[in-house]
Amino acid sequence: MKHLVVFTPSGKRGSFETGTPVLEAAQQLGVDLDSVCGGRGICSKCQVTPSFGDFPKHGVFVDESAVSAWNAIEQRYHDKRGLKPNRRLGCQLKIQGDLVVDVPAESQVHKQVIRKAASSRKIEMNPATKLYYVEVLEPDMHEPKGDLERLKTALAEQWNIDDTHASISLVKKLQNILRKGDWGVTVAVNSTPSESLRRIVNIWPGYHDASIYGLAIDLGSTTIAAHLTDLRSGKVIESSGVMNPQIRFGEDLMSRVSYAMMNADGASAMTNEVRKAINKLVLELAESAKIEPEDILEAVFVCNPVMHHLLLGIDPIELGQAPFALATSDALYLDAKDLNLVSLIDDARIYLLPCIAGHVGADAAAVALSEEPNKSKDLTLIVDVGTNAEILLGNKQRVLACSSPTGPAFEGAQISSGQRAAPGAIERVEIDPKSKEPRFKVIGSDLWSDDSGFDESIKKIGITGICGSGIIEAVAEMRIAGLLDESGLIGSPEATGTARSKPDGRTYSYELFANKDASQPAIQVTQGDIRAIQLAKSALYAGAKLLMDEMEVDSVDKVVLAGAFGAHISSKHAMILGMIPDVSLKNVTSAGNAAGTGARIALCNINARSEIEQIVRKITKVETAVEPKFQEHFVAANAIPHKHDPFTELRKVVQIPSPSFNALSGKNGKLGRRRRRA
Amino acid sequence: MKHLVVFTPSGKRGSFETGTPVLEAAQQLGVDLDSVCGGRGICSKCQVTPSFGDFPKHGVFVDESAVSAWNAIEQRYHDKRGLKPNRRLGCQLKIQGDLVVDVPAESQVHKQVIRKAASSRKIEMNPATKLYYVEVLEPDMHEPKGDLERLKTALAEQWNIDDTHASISLVKKLQNILRKGDWGVTVAVNSTPSESLRRIVNIWPGYHDASIYGLAIDLGSTTIAAHLTDLRSGKVIESSGVMNPQIRFGEDLMSRVSYAMMNADGASAMTNEVRKAINKLVLELAESAKIEPEDILEAVFVCNPVMHHLLLGIDPIELGQAPFALATSDALYLDAKDLNLVSLIDDARIYLLPCIAGHVGADAAAVALSEEPNKSKDLTLIVDVGTNAEILLGNKQRVLACSSPTGPAFEGAQISSGQRAAPGAIERVEIDPKSKEPRFKVIGSDLWSDDSGFDESIKKIGITGICGSGIIEAVAEMRIAGLLDESGLIGSPEATGTARSKPDGRTYSYELFANKDASQPAIQVTQGDIRAIQLAKSALYAGAKLLMDEMEVDSVDKVVLAGAFGAHISSKHAMILGMIPDVSLKNVTSAGNAAGTGARIALCNINARSEIEQIVRKITKVETAVEPKFQEHFVAANAIPHKHDPFTELRKVVQIPSPSFNALSGKNGKLGRRRRRA
Repeated sequence: MKHLVVFTPSGKRGSFETGTPVLEAAQQLGVDLDSVCGGRGICSKCQVTPSFGDFPKHGVFVDESAVSAWNAIEQRYHDKRGLKPNRRLGCQLKIQGDLVVDVPAESQVHKQVIRKAASSRKIEMNPATKLYYVEVLEPDMHEPKGDLERLKTALAEQWNIDDTHASISLVKKLQNILRKGDWGVTVAVNSTPSESLRRIVNIWPGYHDASIYGLAIDLGSTTIAAHLTDLRSGKVIESSGVMNPQIRFGEDLMSRVSYAMMNADGASAMTNEVRKAINKLVLELAESAKIEPEDILEAVFVCNPVMHHLLLGIDPIELGQAPFALATSDALYLDAKDLNLVSLIDDARIYLLPCIAGHVGADAAAVALSEEPNKSKDLTLIVDVGTNAEILLGNKQRVLACSSPTGPAFEGAQISSGQRAAPGAIERVEIDPKSKEPRFKVIGSDLWSDDSGFDESIKKIGITGICGSGIIEAVAEMRIAGLLDESGLIGSPEATGTARSKPDGRTYSYELFANKDASQPAIQVTQGDIRAIQLAKSALYAGAKLLMDEMEVDSVDKVVLAGAFGAHISSKHAMILGMIPDVSLKNVTSAGNAAGTGARIALCNINARSEIEQIVRKITKVETAVEPKFQEHFVAANAIPHKHDPFTELRKVVQIPSPSFNALSGKNGKLGRRRRRA
Repeated sequence: MKHLVVFTPSGKRGSFETGTPVLEAAQQLGVDLDSVCGGRGICSKCQVTPSFGDFPKHGVFVDESAVSAWNAIEQRYHDKRGLKPNRRLGCQLKIQGDLVVDVPAESQVHKQVIRKAASSRKIEMNPATKLYYVEVLEPDMHEPKGDLERLKTALAEQWNIDDTHASISLVKKLQNILRKGDWGVTVAVNSTPSESLRRIVNIWPGYHDASIYGLAIDLGSTTIAAHLTDLRSGKVIESSGVMNPQIRFGEDLMSRVSYAMMNADGASAMTNEVRKAINKLVLELAESAKIEPEDILEAVFVCNPVMHHLLLGIDPIELGQAPFALATSDALYLDAKDLNLVSLIDDARIYLLPCIAGHVGADAAAVALSEEPNKSKDLTLIVDVGTNAEILLGNKQRVLACSSPTGPAFEGAQISSGQRAAPGAIERVEIDPKSKEPRFKVIGSDLWSDDSGFDESIKKIGITGICGSGIIEAVAEMRIAGLLDESGLIGSPEATGTARSKPDGRTYSYELFANKDASQPAIQVTQGDIRAIQLAKSALYAGAKLLMDEMEVDSVDKVVLAGAFGAHISSKHAMILGMIPDVSLKNVTSAGNAAGTGARIALCNINARSEIEQIVRKITKVETAVEPKFQEHFVAANAIPHKHDPFTELRKVVQIPSPSFNALSGKNGKLGRRRRRA
């Protein structure tokens, strides 16, 4: 006798014989219901909630008799782990009458994870690596197939997974694990649309009662950020970052390329350093998340082309000169052992997003994947601010991309009191235009420095420096307060009327915070800091302008600020500084670490990999380094806007005083040379 | 205007426009005409001979006007290398009239190589790895594809080779080589029917004017033999062998398995040793052949299951006990770096033939590939004699296989005066039944020891020991001469009537050669040697008998002796010893190193790989170690046949005297235990 079964929320329906398990019915109908153990009552991933009552929409009435009784397997699981009220195991629950069954979000394979970032876009889960429990035939002398071959047969017969492949590393551990699990094992199988082979990446004895994880790694010139992500739920369970140790070979990309050019083993030394740092970071992440490193089965990397080549162990020197030829540009599938990532198991799969061009890397591709300018009606400018800025401009019709060598100033490097965004760093600054006195906020405290209780709130963390967002606000506020002229020169105490303007060699510095402990240096903004910020913002602006020229537009509809500190930049201050082109402030949004988000999307969804591999081919690449207009825009952008600038909205908000001292030319020789070489 | 063109010897024909190059016509017709440079006049692989005169069979008359004139490119090649008379370059020769063109054997890709071995079977060349010359587009800033991607495009456009893949190792060297070759490079592409991806395994700047090579490696328990083979011509250009250094961990397979069982790092120590020995062997081969190791692009391995696992780094202990489960049984495609074969380039491709069963390895599969019992009308018994004997019995209907633990005695090991078959080793022995005096031949001299000039002929090499074939003949001759009784006991000087029978503890030894230099030990056959040979031959005979039982036959039609010294065994002596079952002497042939030949076939022809992978699935496996009848046959075979045995043919040839002393039981305890454990 057959019964109608309707699954919600999918609405899929079908007729099934009395006694059919709900899991089997779901699989037959293609309902998105998870299972690792294949209906053996071990994994509990197939939890469902039967719905009772009248469902006129579906034309059924469901009563308690439609489902089989709660059984011993369900009781055992409930005793051990607890099932939520009304939940049943889909593999145990048998159909006995017309039935409506709800599949909760956590039982769906293709569950969606809300991104934390501003745009709240959902990541649909469709990871490359999934777990399968199989029961393998014991060896038989008269049918002498190898352990691996019997495992493959089990995967094919029990899960319809054919053509699996295993490395020698995996075969080495197979014997022991199969016997330890008494021929019941959980295997992690990796498959992607771009690869013809399915790979067995890891194996555990019995049912592996833990999740599996992947890493989304944003490998920047200055910082390496890694997000340890649960490959089943899509949740980021731990994030961490470290400085890129290659910094000791050169702070910006071109100085690292130079190092590789000048030193025979330069490139491989940098390769070793960055791999070592990644290994350390991975082990720390695993430790603080209390997971086993061998449960980390994938890593997705996004990075600029120089980092990309150095990670792979490829000499980056071709990237230091026109035509900036990449050794390889397409997306790459590798094994952890290919990159000597010994913190991961040999077979952990590595995915590198494709590079867009010789200067526009996989990080820009990740930003495109995350921010989807190609799906936007509005003409959107996306700037991902780091040591190298990735800039995208586009809409549904066309997307352009370039990168611009901003240097590490926006990340707090090359700044006299600069530091990473960490507890103790000044991240917000306001300067009173009349008194020229500052107030500020420090990471780790919610109070402003002139709020009562501030000193107490920072007692443990201290005030240790100024981070990227802090220096941007400080410079912009100094300009608003008349401490800087249009050219970026800090005025003398006489010109500015504040003793915080202190002589510093032949120039002046502005003292943001005088440490009470005299042994600690004061936190100040020096003339050198201003110049570093000017270089960075001019490079950023010039890159954006170049794309606008190419697109033949004078303005954009929207600006998205992305990057490690994108979320923390004040749009107002960014615009005062002239980091970004003129646009209504309400159309400036922050996307957080868009490159990192792109990496997470590619980690969690294999279709996103195919998607970005397609998109990248269609992006128009603009090479800042050889466009003569870049230099023009760069020089023109050196000044800090004054009251005659076109930022009408800003003029309403702040009154920028006229400069009262001589402008200083931005065309200093060193700068010009460096930009040209880049 | 179109002209008829006929290619010989294929007979393929077609019509082509005036001016079409012969190479192009050949490619369009699918004629087997080689080319590496793709018609650029660089490689000279496409040499053809136009035929002139009347060809009534083809219906054409060809005169000199049918071909374009000898051109500058042909002249340049001829000046540099020389072309044989009447040869033209197919890429330069243009069709101007009806034409008959002969493609000489060396211009055919699928040329055939006559095997040296007895059966003179041809190996058709169809290697997995081939060379292609390509011209790669230079990098373009505005079309920023990577070097690798442009190389792939070139392969696809110029050779119709799609979906090529390259490892990171290859990408690392790509940049440099592309630029060194000014964007013209030769690439070696590996493709096999079993693998979905084509692999770029090596790359050279410009046209690579050298051949490429592969290794056929027979990895035995006692010796490792390697044949360096030209992958274009199929010729073996250098062969060499070394002792397997694992011998210090145990002489036979089971003692090595025991070593792995008893020592935590035992298996990996043995893995390291064998890989080190292979690396050394490869470098020596390359050096003596005067080729670059980076031109060696493939290696095919055949070996027994224990060697197979130890080569792969897999713990072999499961192979030491029932059910003798292989960790992996199917054929394996690997990279040299997976096996740490640092003598080869990282990307050199490794192919391991499939294992037949837990005790019947890839070496037996190679023997099956080489000797093709599955294609024989006659019931053929093939014994590949080594430390472990691989035994195959079959015909078109059915093939059975087993292996038998003979121990290394047949290879001259565990023999008191034993040594490898090398100059100085006694390889042939005759003993006069009346005088009991021996005569012998030594490797390195064509003379018998009683020929005049013998001493002079061995002056440089000396007489250093006795090899496998020598000991077999010595034991058989001792039996014929009445120096041994049926049980294998050596008689006293009194019983045998010769002073060459010398007391040796509680038993006697037969002195084959008394060294004149008293400081050098005499070469003699001890009672222990006889026992070792008895063990070995009983194991061999028992294995063959077991297969005959399974096949339900009492006799076989043919016997093929294979193995490193198969070519040197005297069939007569083998039969006197009872190594092989009763069969007419004329039906006993020698196949030389059949396993090594199988490896060479798999190296030279990818279809042979698919073929053996299919055949292996159909072979019936017999496990000697657990068949109670093996023990019975083994014990029964211990004796050395006397005049009442059924070897009628032998009786005519030799008169075996009756034994005159007590038989010694062959069922000594140690032996029985060892066999059971195996």
